[in-house]
Amino acid sequence: MHQHDLIRSIREVNSSKILLVVADGLGGLPLKPGGKTELETANTPNLDDAARDGICGLSIPVLPGITPGSGPGHLGLFGYDPLEHQIGRGVLEALGINFPVTGKDVAIRGNFVTVDKDGKISDRRAGRPTTERCVEMCKKMSTIKIPGAELFVEPVKEHRFVLVIRADGLGDKVNDTDPQAVGVKPLQAKGEDTASQKTADLVNQFIAAAAKVLAADAPTNMVTLRGFAVYPAIASMEDIYGLKACAIAVYPMYKGLARLVNMTISDCGSTLEEQVRTLEKLWSQYDFFFLHYKYTDSTGEDGNFDAKVKAIEALDAEIGKMRALKPDVFIVTGDHSTPSKMKSHSWHGVPTLIVADNARFDGVTHFSESSCITGGLGQFQAKHLMLLAMAHANKLGKYGA
Amino acid sequence: MHQHDLIRSIREVNSSKILLVVADGLGGLPLKPGGKTELETANTPNLDDAARDGICGLSIPVLPGITPGSGPGHLGLFGYDPLEHQIGRGVLEALGINFPVTGKDVAIRGNFVTVDKDGKISDRRAGRPTTERCVEMCKKMSTIKIPGAELFVEPVKEHRFVLVIRADGLGDKVNDTDPQAVGVKPLQAKGEDTASQKTADLVNQFIAAAAKVLAADAPTNMVTLRGFAVYPAIASMEDIYGLKACAIAVYPMYKGLARLVNMTISDCGSTLEEQVRTLEKLWSQYDFFFLHYKYTDSTGEDGNFDAKVKAIEALDAEIGKMRALKPDVFIVTGDHSTPSKMKSHSWHGVPTLIVADNARFDGVTHFSESSCITGGLGQFQAKHLMLLAMAHANKLGKYGA
Repeated sequence: MHQHDLIRSIREVNSSKILLVVADGLGGLPLKPGGKTELETANTPNLDDAARDGICGLSIPVLPGITPGSGPGHLGLFGYDPLEHQIGRGVLEALGINFPVTGKDVAIRGNFVTVDKDGKISDRRAGRPTTERCVEMCKKMSTIKIPGAELFVEPVKEHRFVLVIRADGLGDKVNDTDPQAVGVKPLQAKGEDTASQKTADLVNQFIAAAAKVLAADAPTNMVTLRGFAVYPAIASMEDIYGLKACAIAVYPMYKGLARLVNMTISDCGSTLEEQVRTLEKLWSQYDFFFLHYKYTDSTGEDGNFDAKVKAIEALDAEIGKMRALKPDVFIVTGDHSTPSKMKSHSWHGVPTLIVADNARFDGVTHFSESSCITGGLGQFQAKHLMLLAMAHANKLGKYGA
Repeated sequence: MHQHDLIRSIREVNSSKILLVVADGLGGLPLKPGGKTELETANTPNLDDAARDGICGLSIPVLPGITPGSGPGHLGLFGYDPLEHQIGRGVLEALGINFPVTGKDVAIRGNFVTVDKDGKISDRRAGRPTTERCVEMCKKMSTIKIPGAELFVEPVKEHRFVLVIRADGLGDKVNDTDPQAVGVKPLQAKGEDTASQKTADLVNQFIAAAAKVLAADAPTNMVTLRGFAVYPAIASMEDIYGLKACAIAVYPMYKGLARLVNMTISDCGSTLEEQVRTLEKLWSQYDFFFLHYKYTDSTGEDGNFDAKVKAIEALDAEIGKMRALKPDVFIVTGDHSTPSKMKSHSWHGVPTLIVADNARFDGVTHFSESSCITGGLGQFQAKHLMLLAMAHANKLGKYGA
C-alpha cells in the first residue's frame, strides 16, 4: 500500500496542532577532525530544552549519500517520496520567483545570450546584464503573442528569466535550446512525443518572435531555453493528511514548494520575528504549520561557519515563543545539511527533534549531530517524518484490526 | 526512480579514489553471553585508528534476519539490490571455478552418481570420487558433441562438476534432473517455456551421451544436473558509477562476482601481502578498488574462533599500507557475518567503517560490533554503501534543484 493511502485509511480528525520548523541546511560538519559542528558550537539553550523534553534522531533526506536540492528536501519532509515526485528545473525556477504555476503550464528557464550577425552565439550570458536590463527585456518579450497559448515572461536576475507557456495538452520532453557552446546557433526545440512537440512548436514560434523583438538590443539580442517542466500532479496535504496546513516562509522558493502541496501561504514579513508573530496570529486557524528558516542554509553555502552559528542562535532565541503556543507536536529539523566546510548542500543526516506528549524519551539533552546519532528516533528517512508527526498528534488510528 | 538511474543522473567525474576492503564474513558473535566477538578479541590497533578517524556503523547485507550467500552479499556491497539481481546456482558454481560465463550460456551444477543396471540411482555422490577422478571423467565427457551448441564440462571437486551450454536463445527454467532419492532414475529435463525447452532438449541429449561415455566407469557411471542458470544481465559498475574498477581477490568466486559487474580482475598472487603489493602497483590506474580477504570467513565457517581472531589481526597488520596510499574514501566491511559459534554465514549486521575527509565524526574509537552499533552510519542496508562511498568521494552532485 502506498504511504499516502495508508495515511488516508487510518487518519483521524482532532484539534491537535503540529508545528514543523525547517531550519534549511541545518546539519553541519566540524571544520577540523574532532572539532564541533556549527550546531554544536552554537549556544542553544532552548533547542537543548526541547531535545531533553522530546525525542531526537537524524533525518536522511532521500537515501544515504544523496544530497538533495530544496525541492526534494522539502517534499521528503512533507511526506512525499522525493524519488517518486520530481519537480522539474523550470517549475522550481518559477516557484522561486513566486510565479503561480498551474497544471496547464510548462515552465522553462531562459537565458539572454548574444548572437552575431549570423545568429551564432558569442556570449552565453549576454555579458551578464543588470537585473534592471533583464526586467526591461522581459517586458519587451511580454508583447509577443502566439495563437493557442498564453505566455508569461518573468525576469529572475541578470541574464536569467522564466518563460511559462499555458495551454491544454502540453508536454515537457523537449530538448534544451542552449547548445552549451559559443560559435553555434541556438538549437531548435523538438518534442519527444505529441504533447511535447506541441510545446516545442509554440516555443520555436516564441524564439523566432523574440529574435525580432530583441534584434536591436545587443548584447541581449537572443534567448536560449532549458529545463522544460510541467507542474507535477501531486496530492494536496489536505487530501493525504486531512490537515489544514499553513506555510510561514519568507523566500519565494519555499512558498512555492508549500503551494505545490496546496498549503495556504501566509503573508509573514521578512524576519524570523515577524514569522513568529504571524504564527501566533494564525495559530487558531490551522492544524499544521510549516515555518521555514533560511539563514542556516545561506550562511552554510557562504562557507561562513561563525555566521551559521549565529543564525542557529537567532533561531534558538525564537523557540521559546513557538513552544509557548503549546503545539501538540513540535518538530525542528532541516531539509538537508549545509556544512560551512563544504559550502554546499550535503547528504549528512539532519538533526531532528520531536516534542510531544506521547514521545518516548531518550537520553539526548543537547540538540546536536553527535547527540542525535544516539537518539530514540534513530536515523530515519525524511519521508517518514510526517507519519511520526501525525502519530504523535494522535491523528492516526490503528492499521488493521 | 531506480537507485542506479539516480546515480547515473547525478554522478560526477573527479580523480578521487575509493578503496573497499571486504573482509569476508567479518561480523561475529561471542562464544558465551557477555563475552567478546572475534573482532573484539583481536588486537586491531590500525582498524581502531581508522574507526576513530572515520565514521562507523553496521551493514545489513539484505534485510534484517536474512543471511546471504557470497553472491547476494557482494552484490549488495557493489550497490546492486540483492533481492532484485539474483545469480543462479549454476552461474555461481561456474564463477567459483573461474569459468568465463557469457550472456549466451546456461551454467548447470552437475553431480556424478552411480546407477544400477536398470539405470536407477544407487549412490547420489558416486562414492565421493577423488578430484583426480572427477577431472578424468569430465575430460571424457568433453568429447561429447551436440549440434547447435557448444558444451563445456569443467571439474569442480570430488563428485561435482559444472556443465555450461552455449547457444543462442537458451532459457534456464528447467527442472533439476537429480530426483533427490536413490532407487529411482534421474529425471528428464523439461523447460517451462520455449527457450528453456531448448535448453532441456540439449541437456537430455547430453545426458544420454554421457550415459554411454561413462557406461564402463562405475561408480561414476552417470550424472545428474541442477541449478540451471543463465548469466544475469547486470549493468557494469562503469555504466552505473562511471568508475574504473579493479578487483584484487584471490579466490575464483570473488573474481567471478567482480567480473559479473565488469571490474578488471587483477593478477594478485595468493596472500594478503601480495594483494596489497598489487594494490600499490595498480593504485594510479583505477578509481575504485575492491580488495577481498577470505580468511575471516573460512575460519568462521570452520568454527575456529582463535583462527578467526588471528585472521583479523593479519588483516589489521596490512591496514597501514593501504591507508598510506591515501585513498579519498577508505572502507572496511564484510559481505555478511560468519560467527565461529555458528560455523556458518549469518544475518548479523557487519561492522563497517568509512574514512573520508567529509565524513561526519562519531564517538567510535574501536572497530567492533558493539561500538559500530553506536556509530554515525547507524544500521544501513549494504546496497546503500556505494551511495555513501560515491558521496564521500565527492562523486555525486545534487539531486533536484
